[in-house]
Amino acid sequence: MPPAPLSGATRLVPILAHPVDHVRAPRFYNPAFAAAGLDWCLVPMGVPPRHLAGTIAQLAHVGNLQGLNITLPHKAAAHALCARVGPEARRTGVVNTMRLDPDGRWTGESFDGIGFVDAARAHGVLKLERPVALIGAGGAGTAIAFALIAAGVREIGIVDAEMARAERLVQSLCSFCPEVEAHTRAEGLGRAGLAINATPLGLHAGDPMPFDPALLRADAALFDIVAARDTELMAACAARGLPVVGGRPMIEHQIAVQIAFWRGGT
Amino acid sequence: MPPAPLSGATRLVPILAHPVDHVRAPRFYNPAFAAAGLDWCLVPMGVPPRHLAGTIAQLAHVGNLQGLNITLPHKAAAHALCARVGPEARRTGVVNTMRLDPDGRWTGESFDGIGFVDAARAHGVLKLERPVALIGAGGAGTAIAFALIAAGVREIGIVDAEMARAERLVQSLCSFCPEVEAHTRAEGLGRAGLAINATPLGLHAGDPMPFDPALLRADAALFDIVAARDTELMAACAARGLPVVGGRPMIEHQIAVQIAFWRGGT
Repeated sequence: MPPAPLSGATRLVPILAHPVDHVRAPRFYNPAFAAAGLDWCLVPMGVPPRHLAGTIAQLAHVGNLQGLNITLPHKAAAHALCARVGPEARRTGVVNTMRLDPDGRWTGESFDGIGFVDAARAHGVLKLERPVALIGAGGAGTAIAFALIAAGVREIGIVDAEMARAERLVQSLCSFCPEVEAHTRAEGLGRAGLAINATPLGLHAGDPMPFDPALLRADAALFDIVAARDTELMAACAARGLPVVGGRPMIEHQIAVQIAFWRGGT
Repeated sequence: MPPAPLSGATRLVPILAHPVDHVRAPRFYNPAFAAAGLDWCLVPMGVPPRHLAGTIAQLAHVGNLQGLNITLPHKAAAHALCARVGPEARRTGVVNTMRLDPDGRWTGESFDGIGFVDAARAHGVLKLERPVALIGAGGAGTAIAFALIAAGVREIGIVDAEMARAERLVQSLCSFCPEVEAHTRAEGLGRAGLAINATPLGLHAGDPMPFDPALLRADAALFDIVAARDTELMAACAARGLPVVGGRPMIEHQIAVQIAFWRGGT
């Protein structure tokens, strides 16, 4: 269903980004709002970091504001502006979703992780008893790692071009759940039942692949969170006959839980 | 042409209103932007008067802002926030259009009057040698009266439910152009070549008519600035065989000059 034309009755969900011109989220969110029967509009707003707090404070006074979507580079700064945060935000220190509650204060939550887990479950690629290999320990990777462990994954190997970042995430995961086996050992990819690309590599044609798909077992699956296009990594894994999930289902599952949050239902 | 879907490359033109839910302007502006090949979006934002200055100051930092559209009740307050204003704004004390110039300061202008005059000319109902009867001396009526006189109209009779408001407008017009015959005499309607409804009456089905159409001469024309619907006044005048113009052409002509302004071309 195409989104309805904007009107004064439309409720706004600004997505705050910097820079803003690469933001493609409206093409996912606005049809999803329309399909849910909601006259809402995700509106990209480019906000430099030094103006984030002022912009959010001012948007609190906009009468037709439904909520906020927060994206790079604002997720950690937005977390600090929330009076209350949900469990994923508490674990990860970031929010990607905010709503103004009746007391005039912001509640924030991050739904990257739950969106990923819901999508992986729906596509049958999440096997809790098998090791997971996570490539990319940035914001998305961190959210996904915590959500996988909260969902019951017991072993997770983490790779990042910045080794110290992978180590920090391992330590955080072990603090969060001492029983989990989190590590940065190189053989993680060769043991994994599910390999996850949580880096931006593949967003642009010609990007190098985030890892060599030949390292994966024949019974592994790939989840590539890049949503804008089908990546070369996805094509290579599909050519090997592996189950492959792209970033779009993660967004779709995330939007569903975000809508419930913006409605005040969570 | 339907507007393109929003993306991060879309340039925003917030329309600031309070209340906002009645705002219908996006359905006029957004197709006009698309027809002009512009990836711009008019986005309604409900801003209470006490937060207008803060909101406008904050919007100045939004990277993908193209300009602002200002509507009720903010037009006079917005005028005060502009470092520079155009000629119609200077005459009327209000702005309905703002842009941020390279020096980081706001330039404002009001295009209600020029939009009206352009549309009346295009529809052949503006005869400079004939008296005009203007019903409604509020913001729109004031803008229209000044623009008519600037265009060369020599006699204008003004009616308003609030008599003092009509008198104030007459005095302003006489100061602006001492040669003009501006008055509030009751016989204005019966002499007019063009009668203008510049009140909101007719916006809602069941509104009383702003004046009795039987008072108009058989060679008069009606311009009703209500754009949302064809009013009962328009139907009554059309039934008498008078030329009738509705509010939509005024908006279309105004949008054309606003686009040029937002592009920095005026």
